Amino acid sequence: MFKIGIVGGTGYTGVELLRLLAVRNDISISVLTSRTEENKKISSVYPWLSFLGNKLFQYPKVDNLYQCDVVFFATPSGVAMEMAEPLVEEGVKIIDLSADFRFKNIELWSSTYKSEHCCPRLAKEAVYGLPEYFRNEIKGARIVANPGCYPTATLLALFPLLNEGLISKDTVILDAKSGISGAGRVAREDLLFSENAENFRAYGADFHRHGPEILSQIKQFSNELKNIVFVPHLLPLIRGIEVTAYLNLNKRLSSDELRILYKKKYVADSMVIIEESGIHPQTRWVRGSNICRIGIFTQNNNETIIISSVIDNLVKGAAGQAVQNLNVMLGLDDNYGLQTIGFVP
Amino acid sequence: MFKIGIVGGTGYTGVELLRLLAVRNDISISVLTSRTEENKKISSVYPWLSFLGNKLFQYPKVDNLYQCDVVFFATPSGVAMEMAEPLVEEGVKIIDLSADFRFKNIELWSSTYKSEHCCPRLAKEAVYGLPEYFRNEIKGARIVANPGCYPTATLLALFPLLNEGLISKDTVILDAKSGISGAGRVAREDLLFSENAENFRAYGADFHRHGPEILSQIKQFSNELKNIVFVPHLLPLIRGIEVTAYLNLNKRLSSDELRILYKKKYVADSMVIIEESGIHPQTRWVRGSNICRIGIFTQNNNETIIISSVIDNLVKGAAGQAVQNLNVMLGLDDNYGLQTIGFVP
Amino acid sequence: MFKIGIVGGTGYTGVELLRLLAVRNDISISVLTSRTEENKKISSVYPWLSFLGNKLFQYPKVDNLYQCDVVFFATPSGVAMEMAEPLVEEGVKIIDLSADFRFKNIELWSSTYKSEHCCPRLAKEAVYGLPEYFRNEIKGARIVANPGCYPTATLLALFPLLNEGLISKDTVILDAKSGISGAGRVAREDLLFSENAENFRAYGADFHRHGPEILSQIKQFSNELKNIVFVPHLLPLIRGIEVTAYLNLNKRLSSDELRILYKKKYVADSMVIIEESGIHPQTRWVRGSNICRIGIFTQNNNETIIISSVIDNLVKGAAGQAVQNLNVMLGLDDNYGLQTIGFVP
Amino acid sequence: MFKIGIVGGTGYTGVELLRLLAVRNDISISVLTSRTEENKKISSVYPWLSFLGNKLFQYPKVDNLYQCDVVFFATPSGVAMEMAEPLVEEGVKIIDLSADFRFKNIELWSSTYKSEHCCPRLAKEAVYGLPEYFRNEIKGARIVANPGCYPTATLLALFPLLNEGLISKDTVILDAKSGISGAGRVAREDLLFSENAENFRAYGADFHRHGPEILSQIKQFSNELKNIVFVPHLLPLIRGIEVTAYLNLNKRLSSDELRILYKKKYVADSMVIIEESGIHPQTRWVRGSNICRIGIFTQNNNETIIISSVIDNLVKGAAGQAVQNLNVMLGLDDNYGLQTIGFVP
Repeated sequence: MFKIGIVGGTGYTGVELLRLLAVRNDISISVLTSRTEENKKISSVYPWLSFLGNKLFQYPKVDNLYQCDVVFFATPSGVAMEMAEPLVEEGVKIIDLSADFRFKNIELWSSTYKSEHCCPRLAKEAVYGLPEYFRNEIKGARIVANPGCYPTATLLALFPLLNEGLISKDTVILDAKSGISGAGRVAREDLLFSENAENFRAYGADFHRHGPEILSQIKQFSNELKNIVFVPHLLPLIRGIEVTAYLNLNKRLSSDELRILYKKKYVADSMVIIEESGIHPQTRWVRGSNICRIGIFTQNNNETIIISSVIDNLVKGAAGQAVQNLNVMLGLDDNYGLQTIGFVP
Repeated sequence: MFKIGIVGGTGYTGVELLRLLAVRNDISISVLTSRTEENKKISSVYPWLSFLGNKLFQYPKVDNLYQCDVVFFATPSGVAMEMAEPLVEEGVKIIDLSADFRFKNIELWSSTYKSEHCCPRLAKEAVYGLPEYFRNEIKGARIVANPGCYPTATLLALFPLLNEGLISKDTVILDAKSGISGAGRVAREDLLFSENAENFRAYGADFHRHGPEILSQIKQFSNELKNIVFVPHLLPLIRGIEVTAYLNLNKRLSSDELRILYKKKYVADSMVIIEESGIHPQTRWVRGSNICRIGIFTQNNNETIIISSVIDNLVKGAAGQAVQNLNVMLGLDDNYGLQTIGFVP
Repeated sequence: MFKIGIVGGTGYTGVELLRLLAVRNDISISVLTSRTEENKKISSVYPWLSFLGNKLFQYPKVDNLYQCDVVFFATPSGVAMEMAEPLVEEGVKIIDLSADFRFKNIELWSSTYKSEHCCPRLAKEAVYGLPEYFRNEIKGARIVANPGCYPTATLLALFPLLNEGLISKDTVILDAKSGISGAGRVAREDLLFSENAENFRAYGADFHRHGPEILSQIKQFSNELKNIVFVPHLLPLIRGIEVTAYLNLNKRLSSDELRILYKKKYVADSMVIIEESGIHPQTRWVRGSNICRIGIFTQNNNETIIISSVIDNLVKGAAGQAVQNLNVMLGLDDNYGLQTIGFVP
Repeated sequence: MFKIGIVGGTGYTGVELLRLLAVRNDISISVLTSRTEENKKISSVYPWLSFLGNKLFQYPKVDNLYQCDVVFFATPSGVAMEMAEPLVEEGVKIIDLSADFRFKNIELWSSTYKSEHCCPRLAKEAVYGLPEYFRNEIKGARIVANPGCYPTATLLALFPLLNEGLISKDTVILDAKSGISGAGRVAREDLLFSENAENFRAYGADFHRHGPEILSQIKQFSNELKNIVFVPHLLPLIRGIEVTAYLNLNKRLSSDELRILYKKKYVADSMVIIEESGIHPQTRWVRGSNICRIGIFTQNNNETIIISSVIDNLVKGAAGQAVQNLNVMLGLDDNYGLQTIGFVP
């Protein structure tokens, strides 16, 4: 029985981890922390989790976490990097759902997150937790940086082309849309129901923190792609991300030829599905599931390639991918204990 | 008192015309037609319009419409082109909200709408009803082709740059998102609440009929811009369109310089608002109003220009623009009788 | 030109007052206050109200308000009762959208709102602003207590039967449902989009503050009805209230007979519409409008009467009714400047 | 390996059965029928079910179904009663999710469903599939009538009081609200997204088919309760039912005393949860799960009892309860293979 700790159990990603892990009988959730709900029963804070019994939230302290085999950080930026080092030293493995360990380049991290990084050594060691591309590194990792939600949907869409050296121009356009749960469970006026229902808008059209994360990963694959243009938008729905990528290739390929290339790349990956010809992936098809679905189209006689990629931002974009990383670390199949059928309707 | 006819009074654009025209005391709605609701009271079909009294729906016949000064067609493709000619001959002015008269190029229309055009002479005569650019032609027109919803949001965003000859590449990327009312009031499974709530998807990523409409208008402004890439998406909300345009200029301009250019272009247009620096327009800010709001951003040191344009697809994208065209034809201010404040929250 | 002040211009009811009053040319909004946005331009806080020009928010002080003919309080409980007395003394009329002046019984107010009332004299003088029943008193009032949203929908449904002495049992059941804007624009976790979309729940099933307000008004009409059972629920939509009332009469009347009675009662009231037989009122039919629509049904051979009453909680349930009260005070028609057609779809 | 057939695999309840059964390795879905999608792959009709492989839809014929151990009917009224008899004769067990076998009283069925019943013998034999009350009968049943969605939420709320003979008046008020998926996947204008988003309404306020179903079940428990008043409403969400029941007891009991009574009644039922004091159940807490959650409140010094009961209409109100019945028939635990944690957020 593996002993798991979850730091930050009251946000949306923490709750989603509980939903995904509660069904497993090879795992026990030994420690669940919350600053604000310390010593309260989970079932009194979250009645729909009453099946987890009388477990109490604990205050997040390193001492409480040494007993765990693996600790998930489902916390805002800055928490994991404060607590990670002693845990790793004692052999506790870490899967960090925050952005603290996603950048090897510490200066870039600091300018992106507007603060000093207090644990640069582990940032350099951490493995980027996208199992479709870094499975081997994840297997033996002491610390895994779980990718951001937008980067996950984007990189799974772009990497097959980067892999093949097919992208010709020095930039790609990434028009991204996310459900509101992506902003977390925070009492802010701009996240109220009445501010978001029946509404749609771009945000961060000049800068978003996931831009540098995407670009730094891309640069590991390709020297040719120099830049991205990344514009996120806010959807009036709870869960779901769609990224539409627009790009040009250095040779003309039809959508059918590209489909074959993508299917081949992902043939062994149970968590990525390439849509058949003419099918546009829908966010609800992956709602609640750890799947990324990718549709491929072209316009203007195959001059422009259009890739539409969808995930559930709380699952493949956060908690589900974290569990997939756990599975890889434990030597299990990627999809062990993870739903594959979307929650439709 | 101007006498108005509305052909197709039971769809969403017909009902929106009623909402906008019912408050005016310079206009009487003389004829309102519906094939399916003939001889029924409006108030029994649409209880919230009970203020329109005991008026009955009539069957759509040309003979009934000669009495009108202006007739709006709020019908599917193919109806207006069948009925327009005798009305125009008798001096009845026409504002067609369908696509029948939006293309001068009849072959392009036929290949786009997969049918023969039965009234090519009027198609060549018709004025494209975007008052911000064709106000003079609309004033004296016998027949006005009211623009599509996506084209309205897109062209208002692009024309200032085309006007100045600033667009450098031979293509632009147009990532468009629309509320579901854009598909009309049609009993189709894919338009059901349970198929669209909490869902998002691209559609027509290889082709959408509004693509050729946008491109044919662009070509009237510019020989340089040869192509567009247009991908629409379906939003889980009733009303609202947002188009994010990505383009490159032949000289580097900052978003502030561009803002000045746009404000100057639209200084006399009460229906277009340019957002201040850093502000992203929201679809709810224009909900129920005839306004188009435009935000301007850049990325990568002003290399890529990002324009975010929002309208209410049923107002500035359909019925409101039709009323604006009516106002121009009547010599009134564009915004006469049209709301300017969005319906928030 | 009447000079209007609005205290609390940044909440949903304050913004709705602006939307309704901005279209009028007999009124100038002289003072608009906000504690948090003092000296900021309205258009920078609320971009969709840019049409109101460069007006600034002021700090809410009594001295600023003496210049007004009428002052609206769109504030939380406790603000109006602190500021009302000097204004009234100086001849400034007050329409209070908060609950401060809705109870004649000060002890009941204190126990309901858990605080001391600092202005009991005006509470006794204030007229309850339901124009359909208190039009004459409103005309000459110095201070009008604008009814709560649930009480408006409920009392318009019940008063015709109380008027006629028809209710037999000593209690009625009131099952009420409200959109989320009713909770105001407050940064609270339980009001977030992701907590309310795709969700429904009762709240306050043992007590809600609108219960005593409804009951105290009922008791002015009838000694027979001793109690109510009032249970509110939270709808996943922005605007709209529906109240389903269940009651028994002291004689058997069919829904048609009741419909005649209701229509007769409201024949002179432009803001109340009784649905035809078999029609269930929909909240969207009154969205954005100041109308209350009432459907009448029976079950079990007319033993139980079922009244379904709908309003827009921000209009007839708040700002619209406040403007209706202003109209009455100014000797205008109730519906002057108020929309009557619902915002559909 | 149990062999299962599903007749009507393309509606919402059919799809939900697939979602719930696909995760089980003790069951094979041998036959899946659809009139409209015959010989098409499931994965081409429902891409998110691609994990079910290349299985084809078959035409619904009795001959195809003899191979099954159990057949689910997820069909409109009238299909199951045509096909059930030969299957039952051959030893195939039936779980019917439609209303065909829910009434022992055939005349009542005919007047409620406006048609002749062609299989009255099996209607008399069929067991009403509410396992919390009829577990023993279900165990040995040849045919189970799966309860309606409203009846499930209602009867689980009322039966503990009926059991104890506590209800005093001869009627109870049932104010019910359902998500739109309850109307099924049918191309009807009144079910469109744009007709239901941001909208709420009562429907069937004089009669709904689930009224007689609820009352006929109640009468098996109690001679004292003669009537119900049942009014359904339509919620702008996909999944979820809430029923608020109002009733009077023949002795005064506090909500705490009632809570003890309910908890005792359901102590052995894993699928019913009684909320703690002051907690209102939310529909999202049971979204996707087979749980019914019940909150208990009183008003007016315990004179009126208020029970708020929530379920997911597609799970405990349809497919989940059908699987629970299957589990009972197979001698498994009720919750075998059924989720218990709600899909939040």
